[in-house]
Amino acid sequence: MSWNRKHLLDIQSLSADEIVTVLDTARAFKGVGERAIKKVPALRGKTVINLFIEPSTRTRISFELAAQRLTADIINFTAEASSLKKGETLKDTARNLEALNADIIIIRHSATGAPHFLSRFLNASVINAGDGAHEHPTQALLDAFTIREKKGRFEGLQVTILGDILYSRVARSNIWALLKLGAKVTLCGPSTLVPREFEKLGCHITYDVSEAIANADIINLLRIQHERQRKTMFPGTGEYTSLFGLNRARLGLTKPDVLIMHPGPINRGVEIDSSVADCSRSVILEQVTNGLAVRMAVLFLVNGGKGPQEVAAQ
Amino acid sequence: MSWNRKHLLDIQSLSADEIVTVLDTARAFKGVGERAIKKVPALRGKTVINLFIEPSTRTRISFELAAQRLTADIINFTAEASSLKKGETLKDTARNLEALNADIIIIRHSATGAPHFLSRFLNASVINAGDGAHEHPTQALLDAFTIREKKGRFEGLQVTILGDILYSRVARSNIWALLKLGAKVTLCGPSTLVPREFEKLGCHITYDVSEAIANADIINLLRIQHERQRKTMFPGTGEYTSLFGLNRARLGLTKPDVLIMHPGPINRGVEIDSSVADCSRSVILEQVTNGLAVRMAVLFLVNGGKGPQEVAAQ
Amino acid sequence: MSWNRKHLLDIQSLSADEIVTVLDTARAFKGVGERAIKKVPALRGKTVINLFIEPSTRTRISFELAAQRLTADIINFTAEASSLKKGETLKDTARNLEALNADIIIIRHSATGAPHFLSRFLNASVINAGDGAHEHPTQALLDAFTIREKKGRFEGLQVTILGDILYSRVARSNIWALLKLGAKVTLCGPSTLVPREFEKLGCHITYDVSEAIANADIINLLRIQHERQRKTMFPGTGEYTSLFGLNRARLGLTKPDVLIMHPGPINRGVEIDSSVADCSRSVILEQVTNGLAVRMAVLFLVNGGKGPQEVAAQ
Repeated sequence: MSWNRKHLLDIQSLSADEIVTVLDTARAFKGVGERAIKKVPALRGKTVINLFIEPSTRTRISFELAAQRLTADIINFTAEASSLKKGETLKDTARNLEALNADIIIIRHSATGAPHFLSRFLNASVINAGDGAHEHPTQALLDAFTIREKKGRFEGLQVTILGDILYSRVARSNIWALLKLGAKVTLCGPSTLVPREFEKLGCHITYDVSEAIANADIINLLRIQHERQRKTMFPGTGEYTSLFGLNRARLGLTKPDVLIMHPGPINRGVEIDSSVADCSRSVILEQVTNGLAVRMAVLFLVNGGKGPQEVAAQ
Repeated sequence: MSWNRKHLLDIQSLSADEIVTVLDTARAFKGVGERAIKKVPALRGKTVINLFIEPSTRTRISFELAAQRLTADIINFTAEASSLKKGETLKDTARNLEALNADIIIIRHSATGAPHFLSRFLNASVINAGDGAHEHPTQALLDAFTIREKKGRFEGLQVTILGDILYSRVARSNIWALLKLGAKVTLCGPSTLVPREFEKLGCHITYDVSEAIANADIINLLRIQHERQRKTMFPGTGEYTSLFGLNRARLGLTKPDVLIMHPGPINRGVEIDSSVADCSRSVILEQVTNGLAVRMAVLFLVNGGKGPQEVAAQ
Repeated sequence: MSWNRKHLLDIQSLSADEIVTVLDTARAFKGVGERAIKKVPALRGKTVINLFIEPSTRTRISFELAAQRLTADIINFTAEASSLKKGETLKDTARNLEALNADIIIIRHSATGAPHFLSRFLNASVINAGDGAHEHPTQALLDAFTIREKKGRFEGLQVTILGDILYSRVARSNIWALLKLGAKVTLCGPSTLVPREFEKLGCHITYDVSEAIANADIINLLRIQHERQRKTMFPGTGEYTSLFGLNRARLGLTKPDVLIMHPGPINRGVEIDSSVADCSRSVILEQVTNGLAVRMAVLFLVNGGKGPQEVAAQ
């Protein structure tokens, strides 16, 4: 199926076919990362802006490298939302960047809906690199890419997402992607952080970690963000680790071919035991590599690419 | 007329013919921004340094994109003047950058004359990106470019500059450019901030905003910088807005084809009303687009380009 | 002799032949900096990461420009060691960068041995850009390059290193390089900062600055770092200047063809008098220029280049 969207704002509004088109295009680009010369001219002379209003090193660098490999020019524009508020509105900042002939604006923002807002008035393409607790679509796409690469399918797979579901944009985007692609999703974590509302989407909810991981084909651990975690809803870190941390003992309860995933950066000894992070079932570093391929695919597609068949010619 | 300068330090020392050469060259480059592949090889293998000793995101990015479109390599060197003082003199910093084979050094500095100082001992070209309250020549050139594009001439045009004239390098560079090109300049703002001395240059001065805008073909609003404004000389923001802010009522007093300009970023509701900023007479975003073309032209010319006739071949 | 190393971790483990191979390769690259188009395609499509966990503008920019001139893609990853500790280990950060298909990781870190540590588990090449008080190999290589260019040989040369030897990685790397290449090394500085242990390596030690400089062919001054200097071991800055600063009077005691070197940035009036820094014997700015050529050579060699004979073809 041909891609026809100008923006990538979320997973929720994508069809399963569109998601598969991104994954197929990413597969074609993954090979570029293994070449001696890791570059294709697909976006030569295009201008990409990393508009990061919430700090992030990792996702910014992944997009930056993806743009470089497509031979685009890329500019980093980073600011705190608070300092933006002082002077200029987000709308004015974005329109100024567009006035500099930006072709693609990648936005990370602490406010839900910021990318959708930009897409309403910009002619440039908009890519959501994380908006509040809403969505982080390229993370879900790279997770889906990794699952497909390892398991060969989605239909019938049991995926458990473990952690602070309520405030996680990674969880939301993953839930949308996995359900559309035919997997079954179980959510687990402290009861204050895994609301029953997610059952309406079709997720199974449990607060019992042993049950959650026993039949899982994939366990996707969310990062515990010490500094950001809301004190009133979150148990102490030590308590979280003992109740929900994935350690050797718990790994013993899982299927022998379970995949351990994590969006990074990992907190060794908190949500994941060091030995589990480094074991052969962990695909955490492969997720990082796949993220680059997925972001190349997304940049390529929102810029007018149609799908994987066009990548071979690069 | 052929360009023969190695540096762009100010507008004051340029002839009208030289200014027109920059504008003509910028017009030739503006088309590059509209191409599918927004790049020309004019500065391939040249090294450009953004030496920003005073923070600025917007002007830095505009120069960075301009350099990228000319296929130059560009490095950002940013520092606070205060931290520079701790160890190394500005002269040593600049000579070190030149020792790295820099071809062009773009400098922003809080001290008047910093670019002129560098030009005295460097072999590299120097471009002034704003020095204290002295000059900001590329801003004046992009303003002149925008005026010529919209009005087709300078001769006989009435340009009103409104705001804190005393401390504005944008105002100074605009005054020099406009008077050289044959326009008439009116300055208006709080009396403490619009000194009579500017009359000697040939400007008309008034403290009556209605008079200042009534016959203007162009109104160029200066940005009110909340945080920097000197408390003893500046009325409160609210008072400034009520006395000098360009609102709907005041817009009603202007010529029907007046152009509203602003160097950005704008403070909606302070020096400019939101509806005025977004009205059809406002060319604020076009200024941003033109800024890129003007900065490409300046980089091209100080690097040995002669004028617009050479751009067509790119 | 052909280069066969994947990493550049220190000078201590290099042979004299290997050092000469770097210098010869750098000489071949130095000419690139003087071309109209200062670029060669040697590292096209390669990804270089500047992983600077200790702040540095100068060395980072030198590597950044070197990578650009080799047509590599380069990403800056800067962080404070303290913030790294909060979440992610250095090992995880490095493995994540490698998962992004990084070919070369340039690391500066406040901890001795950090580059060696990375080299044990990474497939990417590692370049040490300064680790604690241990080594700064590219600085020693550019110093050696400058000495050879000016003096034509190392055998029999008297090199005096003057300053805080104890805490200086520049001193350590220089000592290894110079002794391997056949020069004689004298160390001088306050007695608390020039330990006798260096005699075991073959250095001559003196606390008498007149003796140290009298027969020197090269005087290499170390930077006094006001803010970092340990109070209990370091005399006051004024005292240091009067006892060890290189001023006009002391310059009068030196050989007429002595070279004055300094890794920069210099403190005028502290470890070096302004007139000495700018005199004809000073090669401080040439060191900066040579640093770029040396870093191009190092990037080229760790990426699989064999030596200078391959550069001519670029």
